Amino acid sequence: MVTQRIRDFLSTHRPDGPCLVVDLDIVHENYLNFEKALPQSRIFYAVKANPAPEILRLLVSLGSSFDVASVSEIRMVLEAGATVERISFGNTIKKERDIAYAHALGVSLYAVDCIEEVEKVARAAPGARVFCRVLTDGEGAEWPLSRKFGCVPAMAVNVLRRAHQLGLQAYGVSFHVGSQQTNPNAWDRALSDVAMVFEHLEKEGIQLKLINMGGGFPTRYLYDVPTPQVYGMAIFDSLKKYFGNRIPETIIEPGRAMVGNAGVIRTEVILISKKADNDNVRWVYLDVGKFNGLVETMDEAIRYPIETVHDDQAVEPCILAGPTCDSADIMYEKAPYLLPLSLTVGDELLIHGTGAYTATYASVAFNGFEPLRSYVI
Amino acid sequence: MVTQRIRDFLSTHRPDGPCLVVDLDIVHENYLNFEKALPQSRIFYAVKANPAPEILRLLVSLGSSFDVASVSEIRMVLEAGATVERISFGNTIKKERDIAYAHALGVSLYAVDCIEEVEKVARAAPGARVFCRVLTDGEGAEWPLSRKFGCVPAMAVNVLRRAHQLGLQAYGVSFHVGSQQTNPNAWDRALSDVAMVFEHLEKEGIQLKLINMGGGFPTRYLYDVPTPQVYGMAIFDSLKKYFGNRIPETIIEPGRAMVGNAGVIRTEVILISKKADNDNVRWVYLDVGKFNGLVETMDEAIRYPIETVHDDQAVEPCILAGPTCDSADIMYEKAPYLLPLSLTVGDELLIHGTGAYTATYASVAFNGFEPLRSYVI
Repeated sequence: MVTQRIRDFLSTHRPDGPCLVVDLDIVHENYLNFEKALPQSRIFYAVKANPAPEILRLLVSLGSSFDVASVSEIRMVLEAGATVERISFGNTIKKERDIAYAHALGVSLYAVDCIEEVEKVARAAPGARVFCRVLTDGEGAEWPLSRKFGCVPAMAVNVLRRAHQLGLQAYGVSFHVGSQQTNPNAWDRALSDVAMVFEHLEKEGIQLKLINMGGGFPTRYLYDVPTPQVYGMAIFDSLKKYFGNRIPETIIEPGRAMVGNAGVIRTEVILISKKADNDNVRWVYLDVGKFNGLVETMDEAIRYPIETVHDDQAVEPCILAGPTCDSADIMYEKAPYLLPLSLTVGDELLIHGTGAYTATYASVAFNGFEPLRSYVI
Repeated sequence: MVTQRIRDFLSTHRPDGPCLVVDLDIVHENYLNFEKALPQSRIFYAVKANPAPEILRLLVSLGSSFDVASVSEIRMVLEAGATVERISFGNTIKKERDIAYAHALGVSLYAVDCIEEVEKVARAAPGARVFCRVLTDGEGAEWPLSRKFGCVPAMAVNVLRRAHQLGLQAYGVSFHVGSQQTNPNAWDRALSDVAMVFEHLEKEGIQLKLINMGGGFPTRYLYDVPTPQVYGMAIFDSLKKYFGNRIPETIIEPGRAMVGNAGVIRTEVILISKKADNDNVRWVYLDVGKFNGLVETMDEAIRYPIETVHDDQAVEPCILAGPTCDSADIMYEKAPYLLPLSLTVGDELLIHGTGAYTATYASVAFNGFEPLRSYVI
């Protein structure tokens, strides 16, 4: 979505080189939509999606809490004005000294997914609250998660029991249904697993309090996605189904869905060419690519809408590539992208839906190209 | 290769967090080996492999020339003391204003692979020398290149003819046999294509002067690779075969082979865990991953040697992953990596052969993690 504010900014400031522009009004609207859709859940914004200070400050003012991946994200959130009660250290892979640092600052909520991590938290943040992440199958997600995070539900029982034994507060269970999850019912299966963990531990006298229902809420790329309202209803139905009138405290961690549609990347066509005179597919080279903002085109996973000044004209399939000398710096090749025949070198393109997972992913200086510049308006 | 100098540096300085250490003595040795192996060829170091100022200054002092991918790499090379005659602007995808900038600085050698790029160079750098990149099949390369760069040889004839017509100096032909090319005969097929382009244009009265034989020379990862000497002999045989006693000026562009084995990444084990109590593969999480240095593990392409303090002990297959909350941040999973059973959290590992394509590829701040720090000694 390219708002008038973004169009005005670009035409007034005309920044040189590629850039990301994020419209805070859209972030604001997204936040309110989540708040309305899941009124019983606290919102923990997934800072990694876009940690721009302006975004963090806005979300602090709206009452958001924050899911952080590192101590540096903790610092950013505190600098934006949040208090430590609003922070969840959601990375299951933490150095013990980073846990100690977070604990010293007052952070008291930590993700774990194995006994080894529980032991670290018990040593470095005695008395803290921990939630254990369980594996889900990710069915229906455009980008199903790997098995990198989480453990099977049966093991989560052992992990949380161990936390309890070590003097930690065995606080809850988390899961993640997979990124860009377009099926609102995907939470159901995971919630049934979570209920099993709750019941199991309750029998042992350990009363869990929290379900962290993670992120995975989609943003609009080429196709419409269900609204937060639809997700909220489906999730609430599942919560009632498994927990009846004893629904625990719940949190959600939107990242992509909070900022994705608020951002637009402005890029320029550097070159259009063919590899042989009789080729029927043109190569279109942009000044952004996999290594300066579009890393989520890896395996052609995310397909961004691209706006050109010739969008009313006839199109043809193009291979889309980035500006570096790296032969892997190609965005769309297996499934070429339809672009206007009249596209020419120097044309400016707008890549929609790029507010999340773009600027911070950019390489520090690969091929000498500077990281993607970012403007939050 | 972990030299004593690198070991001493790490044990003396004990930098906090993950880091890359590059030993200039090895770079020096690599340069001399190439000089000896291909005495008739000028060496254009591929700056993108590692643009650390110390490396550039060393190579300037040794007489190297430089293959650059961007105007910022031109600036780095000039700052390191090189003169403009030693620069080749080797990226086939250039903004016209960047060509003009390079031309204003005095750079006079440019890569092209299509008529559109020739026209840009003719406008922005009138009279410059251009070489046209041709496509090769990349057979035998551990990382075959895509079709992103180059055109078929028949089209190269048209491209160079057009350059000549536009007042540019149609100077030569380039190719790249694919990264980490372990077959020294891979240059032969490409050189036969190049000879065809030379002959074709000679009949039209256009005398090309240069063959840019690109990079692709391998560095040692898990297995030994042929020495530069072996490549030099094979390449010289092919040059004689196709050009007889009229061998043109040749250049090579080693990057990986110049700095790869000079660097070592020091990393720390953050977590070792299983996903279920009865899993037989352990997950090992390091403080470096795909987004802060190890991007070349993409698709498990490059398999680095990893040194632990327990290397004399029994090993088991492990899945190796990075520290971020990104589920794609996994280095080796399809083919798990053998690591000692006695490996524990907090152990330091040395990842060998990481001098090339690591530090500059790192994300600027993904998940809040800082880019890989680099020390050149």
